Amino acid sequence: MKVLSVLKRIPEELKQSLESNFPSVEFRYCHGMKEGEAYLEEADILLTYGEDLNEERIEKAGRLKWIMVMSAGMDLMPFRAIEAKGILVTNVRGIHAKPMAEYAIGMFLQVAKRAKVLQQQEARSEWNRRLDFQELNDRTMTILGTGAIASETARLAKAFGMTTNGVSKSGRAKEHFDHVYSVEELHVPLEKGDYVAAVLPSTEDTSGLLKEEHFQTMPEHAVFLNMGRGDLVATDVILDAVRKGEIAHAVLDVMEEEPLPEEHPFWKEEAITVTPHISGITSRYLPRGFEIFEKNLHAYLNEQSMENIIDPERGY
Amino acid sequence: MKVLSVLKRIPEELKQSLESNFPSVEFRYCHGMKEGEAYLEEADILLTYGEDLNEERIEKAGRLKWIMVMSAGMDLMPFRAIEAKGILVTNVRGIHAKPMAEYAIGMFLQVAKRAKVLQQQEARSEWNRRLDFQELNDRTMTILGTGAIASETARLAKAFGMTTNGVSKSGRAKEHFDHVYSVEELHVPLEKGDYVAAVLPSTEDTSGLLKEEHFQTMPEHAVFLNMGRGDLVATDVILDAVRKGEIAHAVLDVMEEEPLPEEHPFWKEEAITVTPHISGITSRYLPRGFEIFEKNLHAYLNEQSMENIIDPERGY
Repeated sequence: MKVLSVLKRIPEELKQSLESNFPSVEFRYCHGMKEGEAYLEEADILLTYGEDLNEERIEKAGRLKWIMVMSAGMDLMPFRAIEAKGILVTNVRGIHAKPMAEYAIGMFLQVAKRAKVLQQQEARSEWNRRLDFQELNDRTMTILGTGAIASETARLAKAFGMTTNGVSKSGRAKEHFDHVYSVEELHVPLEKGDYVAAVLPSTEDTSGLLKEEHFQTMPEHAVFLNMGRGDLVATDVILDAVRKGEIAHAVLDVMEEEPLPEEHPFWKEEAITVTPHISGITSRYLPRGFEIFEKNLHAYLNEQSMENIIDPERGY
Repeated sequence: MKVLSVLKRIPEELKQSLESNFPSVEFRYCHGMKEGEAYLEEADILLTYGEDLNEERIEKAGRLKWIMVMSAGMDLMPFRAIEAKGILVTNVRGIHAKPMAEYAIGMFLQVAKRAKVLQQQEARSEWNRRLDFQELNDRTMTILGTGAIASETARLAKAFGMTTNGVSKSGRAKEHFDHVYSVEELHVPLEKGDYVAAVLPSTEDTSGLLKEEHFQTMPEHAVFLNMGRGDLVATDVILDAVRKGEIAHAVLDVMEEEPLPEEHPFWKEEAITVTPHISGITSRYLPRGFEIFEKNLHAYLNEQSMENIIDPERGY
C-alpha cells in the first residue's frame, strides 16, 4: 500500500505519527504536485489540497483508489474523471468549524467591546473610558447557515447566554439553535438579529441573496459579519448599509473581490472591519486534518466505514 | 418608607419599574450627594455608588436602615460608623462577572487571532494572510482567583474546549475549574497556562504576588491578562517579562498607576495591550444593579432574606 502526499511543508511529527501508526504502509512525501507527478502511477492513496488535479493526472494514476483532500473546498476537483474511475474521495469537512466559530465570537466581542477605538486610543497614549461598551449576553445572534461552522458558532453563542436563530433552505430544527427559519422567512430572524453572521456557501441560491431591504430590516445597532462567501452581498449594498446607518458595523472576512485592492473603499470605512479571509486559518489545521486522515486510513485498511466521504456527482 | 437615590443619570425606565413595582414606597432621585444631602435625614434606604459617604453623613442620616451600594468596590465606605449604627449594607457583588468574563475571552481571542496586526494592516490597506493564527480550543487557561468573575470566565473557557486551572487561597475545588491550586502551588498552574488571567482583589496577600520568577515559569507563548488589581504585579516586572520574551503578550486593564500617564512605556510596547480599566463597564450595569435592588427591596419589605449582604467588619 503506497500513499503519495503532495502537501508542502508537513511537520515532522505528523509524518512520524503516520509512520509509527501504519508500519505496513509506504509513505512518500513530495513538495507539491510538480515533484509528486513522477510517483502518481504507483500511488494507491493520494494526499492533496485538491487544487492540483486534472483529468490527465487522474488518467495517469492507474492504481489510485482514494484521494484524501486536505481542504473543504472542492471547486477544482475533476469529479467526472474521478467518478468514471470509481476513485473514493474524502475531505476535511468540519475542520474549519472551531477556528471560524472562534473568529465570529472574537470579532463580535471586538465590536461590542469597542476594540477598534480602544486600539486607536492606545496608539495615541490616550486614557478614555467614556465609550459605549456592549455585551453578547442576553442578545440575539442570527446565523445564515446551519452547517458544521454555523452550528459550532451557535453552540458558543449559547454559552454566552445568547438567543440563537438559524436560517437554512429547509428551516429544519438543529441543535444549538433556538429557532431555525427557512430562507423564505429570512426577514424574521434578521429583524431580531443584534449580531448577524453569514456562513453560507456559494451556490446559485445564495449569490446576491442579501439585498438593501435585508439591511434595512436589521436593527440599527446590528453587527453584520460575513465569513461564508463574498458574493452573498454586493459591495455597494454593504457600503450603503453602513453609510446610511442601517446597521452599526460590518465585519468582512470575505468579499466580492479578493484580495481586496488597495484603493477599495472598505479599507477606510470606520464602520467596516476587513480581515483578509483568515477566519478558517489556524496553526492546528494540518494536525486536525491528519487526525481525520489517520482515522480514515485505519478504517480503509480494516475495511470499516470511513467519514467525510464526498459524492463525486454532487461535489460535496 | 422613603428611598433616597444619589445616583446620577438613572434611565427613566428603571425609575418607572421601581415605582410601578413598589407603589407604597416613596422614591426621591437626586443628581449626586450634593443635591441629595438635604434629604439624608428622612431617608430609610440610600442608593449610592458608595464613594460619597463619610461619618458625618452617616450621623446625619438618622432614620437610615439600609445602604444599597451600586458598586462592588467598598474602599471608601465609613464602615465603623455604619456598623455602630447597625445599618445594613448590600452591594452588587457579581454584577461584573458577565462583562469581565466576556472581556477576558474577547481579549484572549484578539491576541490569538492577531487582531492588533490585522488592524494595523487594515489601516495600511494591506492584504496579508501570513500570520500565526492561534485558537483557544484545546489550550489551557489558568485563572488567578476562583470568585464570581473567575468562575464565569472559567465557564466560558470550558465552552471553548479549554482546560481550566484556578488558583485560590484554599485551593478548594470549584465548578468550571478542572483543577484548583492553592497560592503555595502557584508555579504549577502557571507553567501549564497558555492563557493566564488574573482576577484577584487587592489585599495584603496579593499585592506584588506575581514576580519575575512567575513570568519565567509561564510558557514563552503565554498570554497574561490582568483585570483584577494593578498592584498584583509591578510595572517593571511586566515590562521585563515581555521584553525578554518570557511571555508572548500582556493584556492590562489595570496597572499600578491609573490613569496611565501619557509617557508610560506600556502604551508603546508592541507586546502589551492596554485598556483603560473598562473590563467591568457595560451598558447593562444599571439595569442589572436595579434588578438586584428590586429583589432585595422586595425581600426587605417582606422581611425575607436578602442577597449580597456586606459584613461591615470585614468590608466585603
